[in-house]
Amino acid sequence: MLPQGFLAAALAAGIKPSGKPDLSAVVSDRPCQWAFAGTRSAAAAACVERARVLYASGAPLQGLLVNAGNANAATGEAGQQDNAQMAARAAQVFRTQAALLTASTGVIGHRLPMERVEAGLAQLPAHWQTAALAHAEAIMTTDTYPKLFDRTLSTGQRLVGVAKGSGMIHPDMATMFSFVYTDAAVDEEALRSAFGGIVARTFNAVTVDGDTSTNDMTAVLCNGAAGEAEMSEFLVALEALMRDLAREIARDGEGATTLLTIRVSGAASELEALQAARTCAGSALLKSAVNGRDPNWGRIIAALGRSGAQLNMNKLTVAVQGTPVFAGLPLVYDEAAVSQSMRAPEVIVDLGLGTGTAQGEAWGCDLSAEYVRINADYTT
Amino acid sequence: MLPQGFLAAALAAGIKPSGKPDLSAVVSDRPCQWAFAGTRSAAAAACVERARVLYASGAPLQGLLVNAGNANAATGEAGQQDNAQMAARAAQVFRTQAALLTASTGVIGHRLPMERVEAGLAQLPAHWQTAALAHAEAIMTTDTYPKLFDRTLSTGQRLVGVAKGSGMIHPDMATMFSFVYTDAAVDEEALRSAFGGIVARTFNAVTVDGDTSTNDMTAVLCNGAAGEAEMSEFLVALEALMRDLAREIARDGEGATTLLTIRVSGAASELEALQAARTCAGSALLKSAVNGRDPNWGRIIAALGRSGAQLNMNKLTVAVQGTPVFAGLPLVYDEAAVSQSMRAPEVIVDLGLGTGTAQGEAWGCDLSAEYVRINADYTT
Repeated sequence: MLPQGFLAAALAAGIKPSGKPDLSAVVSDRPCQWAFAGTRSAAAAACVERARVLYASGAPLQGLLVNAGNANAATGEAGQQDNAQMAARAAQVFRTQAALLTASTGVIGHRLPMERVEAGLAQLPAHWQTAALAHAEAIMTTDTYPKLFDRTLSTGQRLVGVAKGSGMIHPDMATMFSFVYTDAAVDEEALRSAFGGIVARTFNAVTVDGDTSTNDMTAVLCNGAAGEAEMSEFLVALEALMRDLAREIARDGEGATTLLTIRVSGAASELEALQAARTCAGSALLKSAVNGRDPNWGRIIAALGRSGAQLNMNKLTVAVQGTPVFAGLPLVYDEAAVSQSMRAPEVIVDLGLGTGTAQGEAWGCDLSAEYVRINADYTT
Repeated sequence: MLPQGFLAAALAAGIKPSGKPDLSAVVSDRPCQWAFAGTRSAAAAACVERARVLYASGAPLQGLLVNAGNANAATGEAGQQDNAQMAARAAQVFRTQAALLTASTGVIGHRLPMERVEAGLAQLPAHWQTAALAHAEAIMTTDTYPKLFDRTLSTGQRLVGVAKGSGMIHPDMATMFSFVYTDAAVDEEALRSAFGGIVARTFNAVTVDGDTSTNDMTAVLCNGAAGEAEMSEFLVALEALMRDLAREIARDGEGATTLLTIRVSGAASELEALQAARTCAGSALLKSAVNGRDPNWGRIIAALGRSGAQLNMNKLTVAVQGTPVFAGLPLVYDEAAVSQSMRAPEVIVDLGLGTGTAQGEAWGCDLSAEYVRINADYTT
């Protein structure tokens, strides 16, 4: 169930060749305060560029329109016009006072089928509902399941978040989206200034294969319908929700058989802790070893070494699924038992860098032969 | 055949469990001027640390001793002592005036079997020869073939280079070595100042899976036995030789079915051109597409977008195997024909960034299901 004042709608507009739901919207009954982060790609899609301009303007937002099946990226000025038209038409059809965010995901380099988008848009208001699941499903591309979490604050306000992952089965479907809706009223300035750090510790700590998309975006919309929230409690809940969504994106990485969690402590700074964790979570060699349930700490140290984080090799500690395997020197441990313990839905590697007190965490997944099969399986 | 004044020897000392050659040396009949580059890993192995100190001292070098099968990395102070002992013992046995470089590659985190190393060392002088092939073979770990090239200058001096790649079949065998021997006399200061750029454009432009090793190193040893070379001709020949070796390392990437060459032009700087080329060559999505012979330029643009290089999307051009597929906008092309043309031992992607005049090139290989099978295939 969405927070108070929000409605969602979803349908199949014929953008995806599969005929699955591919167009959805969420609207609020009043303008929202919001925070946003988009891809750092220099080839960012039209929807990201538009969102940036809107965000910088300080204007409120009253909802969003998402299409899957077509990224409207690398489509030049014509693509920007399509995007602007989609936004304007949605605001008209949904009769919102404030602007709507647009978000597109799917194939790169194809013009949006605007007739289908507009026809679908016109039908959306017939589908308004208070449930969020259909919306979570309609933003999926190659995800194997919808990603939906919620939190309730002690003062009663709710947060509901959806996400889609970067499973990239069909060429170019690489986008990560996350949208959080809440009926809490918040201090927008405080939210915006905290949001970058939250994104760094959640969505930017997820790596499936290192391939950043042209369309990645995350946003939180706060309509205030349930009154003011205590800001620090709100931010903690928002981060926990985004962390849950981020972990599911990693878990649902394509071809993945396990979630890979890298926890770093004893780092010189949070930045270095995150760098170290992300580099390990993204190492093709480590990911392959995890696929084979091999407690191969040599690969972990090699990945740490190139992460850019400072290491104290004499104090460096490595534990796999709770078993210490390295502590300044290789430790004797039961390889077969650790390998067996890695046959779990989550493999946790704990690293102590020995250079400070900062911590960080990142999530990835194992690299399977299935990943390659999926991404190479293309017949021209 | 090695350049004048150099001899090589190789044998199986029992460091590799397979019983294959794993210990080799090259010595010069006189001290050499030299240049060196080592891994940037914060977990660099003992041999890299020692080489750095030696290099910074300005002392000449009279050859090198390489073992395969054991990286002597993450072995603490004991490992440093083993390395120092190996170097000292080799200089004694080979009766050199100047120091020898040591280089180790193989499993991380195991002490060197020093008795076997010393016994093997004592036997090496019985195997001195003027051919370089046995040396090229003995430095291999998981390479499928030895890598050996040579160049002759117009003034008669020769350069012979060997390399081993980062095929990483067995856990942790991730090291890239390249050693070039020449009988040219050169200006050492000019060589050292040019060497960083040459390494950036050759070995640092190779990516197999993004996993930098603890032990990577490259060095050039110039004994001057054939007299002085014209410096600019020498540097051009050295770079061409190192480029040949680098390309073979990419081609022999594990599980690879094709060499992937990314040529970038129109970049704002050489650094950005190299960044863009390397990011594309290392993209798991693009590598998977190349494995499937899919001319998937959307993935190329996504990789370019996150490379850090500036792009002018309106001027951006992409060509695959010579066929333009994008020029500011998607182009119409024969996908089946381009896919067919990618069934070649080398797939070339040309990118024009439209932001300047600088160029750069990087090499990788496709990502195959075989890569994962190889790296996950571990039974504890």
